Amino acid sequence: MTSEYLPGLAGVPATKSNISSINGEKGILAYRGYDIRELAEKSTFEETALLLLDGHLPTEPELEDFDQQLRAERRLKYRIRSIMKNLPTSGRSMEMLQTAVASLGMFYGGEEVLSDGIAGNDVEYIHSMSVKIISRMSTIVAMWEHIRNGYDPVEPRDDLTHAENFLYMLEGKDPDPLKVKIMDACLVLHAEHTINASTFAAMVCGSTLASPFLVIAAAIGTLAGPLHGGANERVVEMLKEIGRPENASAWLDNKLAKKEVIWGMGHREYKTKDPRAIVLQKMMVEWGETQGNLSSQFETALRLEEACEARLGPKGVYPNVDYYSGILYTEMGIPTDLFTPIFAISRVAGWLAHWREQLSDNRIFRPTQIYTGNESQCYLDMDKR
Amino acid sequence: MTSEYLPGLAGVPATKSNISSINGEKGILAYRGYDIRELAEKSTFEETALLLLDGHLPTEPELEDFDQQLRAERRLKYRIRSIMKNLPTSGRSMEMLQTAVASLGMFYGGEEVLSDGIAGNDVEYIHSMSVKIISRMSTIVAMWEHIRNGYDPVEPRDDLTHAENFLYMLEGKDPDPLKVKIMDACLVLHAEHTINASTFAAMVCGSTLASPFLVIAAAIGTLAGPLHGGANERVVEMLKEIGRPENASAWLDNKLAKKEVIWGMGHREYKTKDPRAIVLQKMMVEWGETQGNLSSQFETALRLEEACEARLGPKGVYPNVDYYSGILYTEMGIPTDLFTPIFAISRVAGWLAHWREQLSDNRIFRPTQIYTGNESQCYLDMDKR
Repeated sequence: MTSEYLPGLAGVPATKSNISSINGEKGILAYRGYDIRELAEKSTFEETALLLLDGHLPTEPELEDFDQQLRAERRLKYRIRSIMKNLPTSGRSMEMLQTAVASLGMFYGGEEVLSDGIAGNDVEYIHSMSVKIISRMSTIVAMWEHIRNGYDPVEPRDDLTHAENFLYMLEGKDPDPLKVKIMDACLVLHAEHTINASTFAAMVCGSTLASPFLVIAAAIGTLAGPLHGGANERVVEMLKEIGRPENASAWLDNKLAKKEVIWGMGHREYKTKDPRAIVLQKMMVEWGETQGNLSSQFETALRLEEACEARLGPKGVYPNVDYYSGILYTEMGIPTDLFTPIFAISRVAGWLAHWREQLSDNRIFRPTQIYTGNESQCYLDMDKR
Repeated sequence: MTSEYLPGLAGVPATKSNISSINGEKGILAYRGYDIRELAEKSTFEETALLLLDGHLPTEPELEDFDQQLRAERRLKYRIRSIMKNLPTSGRSMEMLQTAVASLGMFYGGEEVLSDGIAGNDVEYIHSMSVKIISRMSTIVAMWEHIRNGYDPVEPRDDLTHAENFLYMLEGKDPDPLKVKIMDACLVLHAEHTINASTFAAMVCGSTLASPFLVIAAAIGTLAGPLHGGANERVVEMLKEIGRPENASAWLDNKLAKKEVIWGMGHREYKTKDPRAIVLQKMMVEWGETQGNLSSQFETALRLEEACEARLGPKGVYPNVDYYSGILYTEMGIPTDLFTPIFAISRVAGWLAHWREQLSDNRIFRPTQIYTGNESQCYLDMDKR
């Protein structure tokens, strides 16, 4: 009861977890012990999600089973589509996602199971809810792009992988294989990152034995904050501000001289290059090589990256995961305001893994406060105030 | 960086706060220094909400202004009603509330303001958002009762107080004055209670500078968990299980002998009687005296209370706030599954006060973990697993 007060609980352990780990000195992020660079190259989102949920790399039948379950849960009830159609098209996409996911809970139920501590043992229930949520969140995000433009959404297909189907629904046509590869790797790379604010919100909400839809809606709300998700959207704005490739170097010098934020640069956890950025950087180069005409914005990004590495690399500040994902998504034609929802359809795997871990050894979160307010006050009638 | 790991962050200070305080030894709960017993008797929900938000008892013009703002923001757009009409009538009311509040964010916007740390100073923005949310949440809950029964909801009136209007919308007729008095006191008594799980979730979500609709939706999701809100619903189930007044004493002895939970009894924060329970107990007696024929369930509750006080009082375990609110709401004809949503339309005042306080000196919540998982694993191809 004598714990020190540390703002933001910085450095305060909030849980024991075996889901992911970061070695900031060496620049390693690992899910269940598996290096993210290896997963991005060799695994898929489906396999990585199951690895996060179950704790081990699946066997072929396990993965096949999970994949079939995901494919079977892609469809969205027309009432949920109606709910989305009633939302203003000018609204923010993360609020749309929170609304739609919260509504899922009313259609798919499940809270009854979560009482009196039996939930932690009910792996089957936890697994089936996880499938429902992971699968439908990508449907919701892809459908929103059509609905907000006034069109009926593209129905999901069950003959495609998770990443393929998401891009198919978004674009309404069979997606380019390299795009699918990049999207799949992005989903793998964003799926988990230890105890950040949105994951922590999921744990706090889950600790009350709230249903998983409520839990994921709470996490979505938290990821939506500009201090958490959304940095890759700022990267795009920054590139627009720079305007042309030849401006990149001078723009950077000017920003650095004024000590202003360079979006997509540096990460508090990593003293060396963010391992996710290394993977995405390779893909960015690969993408650039396959496209005949590079866009001016892409050229600007390459120039800025060079300039940043030269000036900031020696100080341990490198382009991070948001820098490259922002550029890649833009080049792939994805609307800027869907970047954070796409982050969410990946990170939901990590949120659900932490929800499951929380339930396996649950205690409700109830920290204390240091009271700094008034001691006993006397209520004054209105005419005496 | 050497903090001890305490499950659920029990005893770990997560914030400095001047909103409310509990003296568990003396049985005192105070909002901004004002004893809750005095507020329940002399104040109103409107005044108490403003006290929580602004930190001081309002002057007459301040309160008048706030009251007018609340009255002006009661109406719900027909699109939000359409969203509610698309939700399954069998769904849980807290998930309905989370969905509807999340959707409000798309209609009323405001996230733009919350960037780069200016939010904490923008009291006007914070205040106007607080009004929009407090006022509409009670409309949403009252409307849901009609919508889920297949009827068009009752439109709010602007010539009634907050508690009056809520009961009017719920019942579709001018409410009984004693009911209004009890409901108003219940809203005052539930508005704030230091750092519990839902309030903490609001702080975590708010610390990312997420919009207030996202923040309150996260808190609603957390309150919905059976370990947090919902104990007063269990009280009603318990009374049904007991069945008849003459069974109460024997039922209690049996439960105590088996060391089973008695819902609505005891509170971890209070060593003596929960001060909120004292107020509600008086009102329960008052309600009982004004009703000609007491219901069997009400008689059962009175008998169980006597039995509990005799057996558990000497051990410091008394009927708590949930015990009396459950009984009062039942006697007032409120459906059991609206108890937690009614808790939410009161507690939202506290959540918003903590949101505002968080923004005034913000640091994103990012606790750490104790990693207990695998060290580096070698990715195995499928055929080698």
